[in-house]
Amino acid sequence: MLIVIGNHQPARQNDHAAIHHAHLIVEYNALDSRILQNCLGIGEVHGIVRFQDFAHGASAFRWVGISPNLATVAWTGKTSPMSVAEAVKPEIAVTPVERLHTLVLADMEAADRLIHQRMASAVRLIPELAQHLIDSGGKRLRPLLTLAGARMADYHGDGHQKLAAAVEFIHTATLLHDDVVDASTLRRGKQAANVIWGNKPSVLVGDFLLSRAFQLMLETGDLSVLGILANASAVIAEGEVLQLKSASNLATTEDHYLQVVSAKTAALFAAAAEAGPALAKRDRNFVTALHDYGMNLGIAFQLVDDALDYSGRQAVMGKTVGDDFREAKMTLPVILAHARADEQGRIFWRRVIESGTQGGDDLNQAIALVEQTGAIRETLRRANAYAAAACKALEPLPPSEIHDALVAVAEFCVERAY
Amino acid sequence: MLIVIGNHQPARQNDHAAIHHAHLIVEYNALDSRILQNCLGIGEVHGIVRFQDFAHGASAFRWVGISPNLATVAWTGKTSPMSVAEAVKPEIAVTPVERLHTLVLADMEAADRLIHQRMASAVRLIPELAQHLIDSGGKRLRPLLTLAGARMADYHGDGHQKLAAAVEFIHTATLLHDDVVDASTLRRGKQAANVIWGNKPSVLVGDFLLSRAFQLMLETGDLSVLGILANASAVIAEGEVLQLKSASNLATTEDHYLQVVSAKTAALFAAAAEAGPALAKRDRNFVTALHDYGMNLGIAFQLVDDALDYSGRQAVMGKTVGDDFREAKMTLPVILAHARADEQGRIFWRRVIESGTQGGDDLNQAIALVEQTGAIRETLRRANAYAAAACKALEPLPPSEIHDALVAVAEFCVERAY
Repeated sequence: MLIVIGNHQPARQNDHAAIHHAHLIVEYNALDSRILQNCLGIGEVHGIVRFQDFAHGASAFRWVGISPNLATVAWTGKTSPMSVAEAVKPEIAVTPVERLHTLVLADMEAADRLIHQRMASAVRLIPELAQHLIDSGGKRLRPLLTLAGARMADYHGDGHQKLAAAVEFIHTATLLHDDVVDASTLRRGKQAANVIWGNKPSVLVGDFLLSRAFQLMLETGDLSVLGILANASAVIAEGEVLQLKSASNLATTEDHYLQVVSAKTAALFAAAAEAGPALAKRDRNFVTALHDYGMNLGIAFQLVDDALDYSGRQAVMGKTVGDDFREAKMTLPVILAHARADEQGRIFWRRVIESGTQGGDDLNQAIALVEQTGAIRETLRRANAYAAAACKALEPLPPSEIHDALVAVAEFCVERAY
Repeated sequence: MLIVIGNHQPARQNDHAAIHHAHLIVEYNALDSRILQNCLGIGEVHGIVRFQDFAHGASAFRWVGISPNLATVAWTGKTSPMSVAEAVKPEIAVTPVERLHTLVLADMEAADRLIHQRMASAVRLIPELAQHLIDSGGKRLRPLLTLAGARMADYHGDGHQKLAAAVEFIHTATLLHDDVVDASTLRRGKQAANVIWGNKPSVLVGDFLLSRAFQLMLETGDLSVLGILANASAVIAEGEVLQLKSASNLATTEDHYLQVVSAKTAALFAAAAEAGPALAKRDRNFVTALHDYGMNLGIAFQLVDDALDYSGRQAVMGKTVGDDFREAKMTLPVILAHARADEQGRIFWRRVIESGTQGGDDLNQAIALVEQTGAIRETLRRANAYAAAACKALEPLPPSEIHDALVAVAEFCVERAY
């Protein structure tokens, strides 16, 4: 049997889905194929290849045929001129995000086409840079929320696809500007755009995508939905500035941190989720339910992200561990670890966060301290509570497959940290 | 008699206008009060003070009374505890931009209130940074175009004030990001925001203002106007990226330069000017006339700006001379000077633009070369042609005071260079 591992290429999600139906893909997240080997009995694995190498003609792998229960693949290997593998229904764990993706597949494909159409520009550097990030393997979670919300609200039309594309553009613009602001070097396991092209194009392409997002939203002709997303876009910027202010400040409170997280991350989750039912003109309760789901999911998501920044799991996700630490960001793990620290611990945090003097083993020391003080456990416990609140917000809505998938996504969002 | 000189504080334009009616203000543009002294007979000048010092209680100057023909002012001086001056109708040159401003004064005041209301945020750094730029003495030329266009189109309502505020926000966001991209140190005679607060908040506050612009535009409820401005916003970003690509490239053509200028500058002028009649639902010819006026004015404006960057006049306008030179930007003066250069000149341009090796006297040498080759004169000649095209575009529209003022603004736009 051949195992294909995903490599964060959502532009290929259509192909992913097809292969997925053939039960070939086992892992989307792992960059490290050893994890996969540890998960499966060795005997089951014929070979492990990157999805990209597997799916594209440019590589040595060639697709032969696929059917619901059987996939056949041929490739030229190092040792033989041609190998053939067949995959028949292996045991597979599908993540809830993948399940959600499958449930709105046609919509997501349409949104993805829009995304690629609308990032086009006669100025070639723009699509080149945008594509680097847009096709770098984000899970399209925010646009998925928009499509799921619209489907739950029984929306008919194509406006939700436009909104989904707009949401992805707003998110991408934020990431581009974030990476400039944070001087990041890595994004989704690839070099960040600012490293490859410099800060200037990253800032400007972010502006371009933000404007394109508004153009796409306008095409829906729905002013109330436009208001929801334009407001989220302003709130995101406010949250980012608020975060800048708390950097290096050990006196940052949990409240302040939650304000930052609600604004910089959760506001777009909330807006993305409520945009669908708002477009479908559902009543206030319906819209609010999805807004609250998105808001709580967003907070849970960011809490987990912040916990992972002090965890070895992070490397698996294509990010550098310790980005927040190096930026002296006051995330919840640090706030809690500092509050629970003994005198020696406090001296450590003052040095590395307040005076910004960091050296050799400080990151490992920080990781050990957040772990020992239970700060990571507590951060994840809270993430869990927000995930539960997200699920609870959906309770008034009628049951459906998408409803179930959204609940599972919220639960999975925290599970991924373990 | 007391002479008050403007200091680029449009937030004070209401006060300006009042004092202006009392014929106190002589010069808005000059930061260098000596220019003013050279313009007036020495005997007429009692003292020259900056408008800001003059109009505000916080300073040593105190306002006593004002009437249409007589203004009285008191201030504590170095030599006497209290001096009093009266100003009676001195000879005054009003710029066409000021005249346009006076013609739409109530609208501009309302737009200005909106600008200040909507840049507010609970995150205090945002209005603080935004205000630094918004109240730094820009002439509000772009929002003036929106208000003038709406007035010409006989628009009734308050939507044009919202659009004017949105246009100023888009412009301000662009300036903030530009200054980060260009690593500028000076903007309108003040330290650039990125110097004071750093690049990070400048990027994020730019994003915030761009989002606020869309929120303001949404309040008009007019999707076609939203489309015009959202498109302009995307085109600006495209123009900026296009400009990045031509930096340091001596092979840059005049066509490429015009593409850059049309996109990065003129697109917003055009959108600002046509937004008014579009909002007033005037016919295509009316909207197109103002679009073409704005587009040609914008190109003329940028050509003059680019000429001034190689001119001593620039210092008067609160900019550093030679910014474009240091950035190795391929503006028309350089394109022309290089095309007309002898062998020695070409060697010079290759060194300072292509290889970016600039030292001591190179800026002066560059200024001398663009002057000697007639590149400045040719740039201004072309600016003049675009200004004429701007005026011609307005010809089909009915005569009015605002019509006249717009024509005068186009002519003045080039005159300011002499």
